[in-house]
Amino acid sequence: MTRVLDKIYLDNNAATPLDAQVLDAMLPFFREDYGNASSLHSFGRSARKAVEKARADVALFIGAAFPEEIVFTSGGTEADNLALAGVLGASKDKRRHIITSQIEHRAILNTCEFLEQNDAAKVTYLPVDRYGAVDIDGLRKAIKEETALISIMYANNEVGTLEPVGPAAEIAGENGIIFHTDAVQAAGKIALDVRKERVDLASLSAHKIYGPKGVGALYIKKGVNIKPIMHGGHQEKGMRSGTENVAGIAGFGKACQIARKRLNEDMSHMAKLSDKLLEFITSRIDGAVLNGHPAERLINTLNVGFRGIDSESLIMNLDLCGIAASSGSACASGSMDPSHVLKAMGVEPSVAAGSLRFSLGRHNTAGDIERTCDVLLDTVRRLRDLRFSSGRPVPSRTVK
Amino acid sequence: MTRVLDKIYLDNNAATPLDAQVLDAMLPFFREDYGNASSLHSFGRSARKAVEKARADVALFIGAAFPEEIVFTSGGTEADNLALAGVLGASKDKRRHIITSQIEHRAILNTCEFLEQNDAAKVTYLPVDRYGAVDIDGLRKAIKEETALISIMYANNEVGTLEPVGPAAEIAGENGIIFHTDAVQAAGKIALDVRKERVDLASLSAHKIYGPKGVGALYIKKGVNIKPIMHGGHQEKGMRSGTENVAGIAGFGKACQIARKRLNEDMSHMAKLSDKLLEFITSRIDGAVLNGHPAERLINTLNVGFRGIDSESLIMNLDLCGIAASSGSACASGSMDPSHVLKAMGVEPSVAAGSLRFSLGRHNTAGDIERTCDVLLDTVRRLRDLRFSSGRPVPSRTVK
Repeated sequence: MTRVLDKIYLDNNAATPLDAQVLDAMLPFFREDYGNASSLHSFGRSARKAVEKARADVALFIGAAFPEEIVFTSGGTEADNLALAGVLGASKDKRRHIITSQIEHRAILNTCEFLEQNDAAKVTYLPVDRYGAVDIDGLRKAIKEETALISIMYANNEVGTLEPVGPAAEIAGENGIIFHTDAVQAAGKIALDVRKERVDLASLSAHKIYGPKGVGALYIKKGVNIKPIMHGGHQEKGMRSGTENVAGIAGFGKACQIARKRLNEDMSHMAKLSDKLLEFITSRIDGAVLNGHPAERLINTLNVGFRGIDSESLIMNLDLCGIAASSGSACASGSMDPSHVLKAMGVEPSVAAGSLRFSLGRHNTAGDIERTCDVLLDTVRRLRDLRFSSGRPVPSRTVK
Repeated sequence: MTRVLDKIYLDNNAATPLDAQVLDAMLPFFREDYGNASSLHSFGRSARKAVEKARADVALFIGAAFPEEIVFTSGGTEADNLALAGVLGASKDKRRHIITSQIEHRAILNTCEFLEQNDAAKVTYLPVDRYGAVDIDGLRKAIKEETALISIMYANNEVGTLEPVGPAAEIAGENGIIFHTDAVQAAGKIALDVRKERVDLASLSAHKIYGPKGVGALYIKKGVNIKPIMHGGHQEKGMRSGTENVAGIAGFGKACQIARKRLNEDMSHMAKLSDKLLEFITSRIDGAVLNGHPAERLINTLNVGFRGIDSESLIMNLDLCGIAASSGSACASGSMDPSHVLKAMGVEPSVAAGSLRFSLGRHNTAGDIERTCDVLLDTVRRLRDLRFSSGRPVPSRTVK
């Protein structure tokens, strides 16, 4: 087995390594400051202070006007659930129509399905173009009088395509409709500004920006009325009950602080490495196609279809060489269903079946990419040879 | 200000200090093992292994038959929400009646209120006796044909009274009703055995047993049908979507492992200290009464009413002397409402207003209790003198 230090981690869209400074920011709350943030005594006040500091850091990171607009949750999934069910819960009139897209994260799609099954909502799922971008005209046409919410992700987690969030939010605003964006995957990879983009609700997750797993947030613009989905001790001003995960929240705040400062540096670093990897793949490996938008894409995300290859085999073979990549969303890993995102984009099944997501991070090096290129070339060739010699059909057509 | 090391923490029912061994068990997942537990590569498999190991540890701790009966959540509050809303969500017939008690945690009471407001449930709130114990005959009488769920906490968080969970679960079983217990506060302070007690669902929280905040679990007995409340990537076999909080879960598992091994030791240690504190209070401080059952009580929990004292003032004054205590549930701290638990027990308002909860933990020492006794005696006297000299009425009656 390769040693840990030799491993190359290219699955940062699934989870990022925890930044060492983030861990340092968390440790006091695992050691001496173990109070419950709702307690009145000094232990409690110390915890409360950390939570409120983190709230300010998260707010600043996304350009929120007020720290109170940030509600901490257990992660991006809970934030998405809260946004959708929370808006419908607060909808006093009969506005129960949601517009979203076919390429959203499962946290959106499955919450929509749940709401539909319980007759709590009607949902329109907008199609996307071949790059995975939602059509703005389609959105305009989908609006009904009963539309309560439009939810369009900021950037797709599988292919990285940037969605037209600004224009979509504007249309929502013009029609008096609440606009939510799942910004979980965009955060830390592109500048977010909820005020500029006129977003009403935005979901975030700490573990995608070098923070801990188990923490996230929903940005709720002042004045937007939503109902909680978690009931209890009235924490987070009643918007999210349950003892605050103080260490996790402190880590999330620190991660936002770092991400804000390093954003340009991180972006240019990841873009350089990503371009290099893409350049190599398209120039050296036959039958490899980029899924997603060539330019309007998260700079760290490369989703590549290798014709004639089974993506699970490729992942496993790369893993044996110490390289971690993914076939798409980690949340859907292990499922043999084709990616709903690639399907919605109209990617040929033969390409979709051999698609791999490389998602780069702050910690990757030029050396990581060089070794990945070598291993990838070798592995793709070997898998194709195996397939050829086993008598299974070779790819019908290869593109350069 | 007193130094951190000099502080005495007697609010372990709000949150326990994190055990150093628990932190050690978590650190690898904050450092090298940062994978998403749903990823297929080695980083993911390492995370998955930790989650499954923890599942087995939690199961063993509560006497569950199978690790798969444990579903990890973001805490006790989410576990309670999942239990209640999940049972009703799965109830195919018209059985929408819940029986619970007036002294449950807010996570139960406020979820019940939410379900009632949404016409999803009818709820019967059982009264309690003067010690805070639910009357079993009352439970029997409350059962209707439509009763889907009985939820009675294992032990009350404010006064420590042990509830008749075994008999209540038996009655539920005889009537084909699902039985849930919020065991958040009981865990680690009394032996739990979900099989012996015939419990169908049980809520747990890591940070009450020297584990991290932001992690909990719901025990779901094999065959009990409940629906998820968090929708997304189908984690936890679809029962709780959202990226697993790997470090937190690993810490929870370790905390259960330790709690199981140390249970007898912890119990006898806390009982000794608690008895000493109670002995001192009742023998040396006039007008002090124990709230809760004198014997059938969590051995670490002392809720004492000091007549003629305002509990918030007492907390603040103790805090100035470096002693952390609480007026009841941390979740309700800051609220000026009298405790719903003491109210349900029929505690006189003058006693309830001056009630303080001391909750001891594994780390408290005999020295902690000695100093607490001294400070308490002094502080109660001083506060009463202040009140007397300010011309406000003195307590009408004092009991020894």
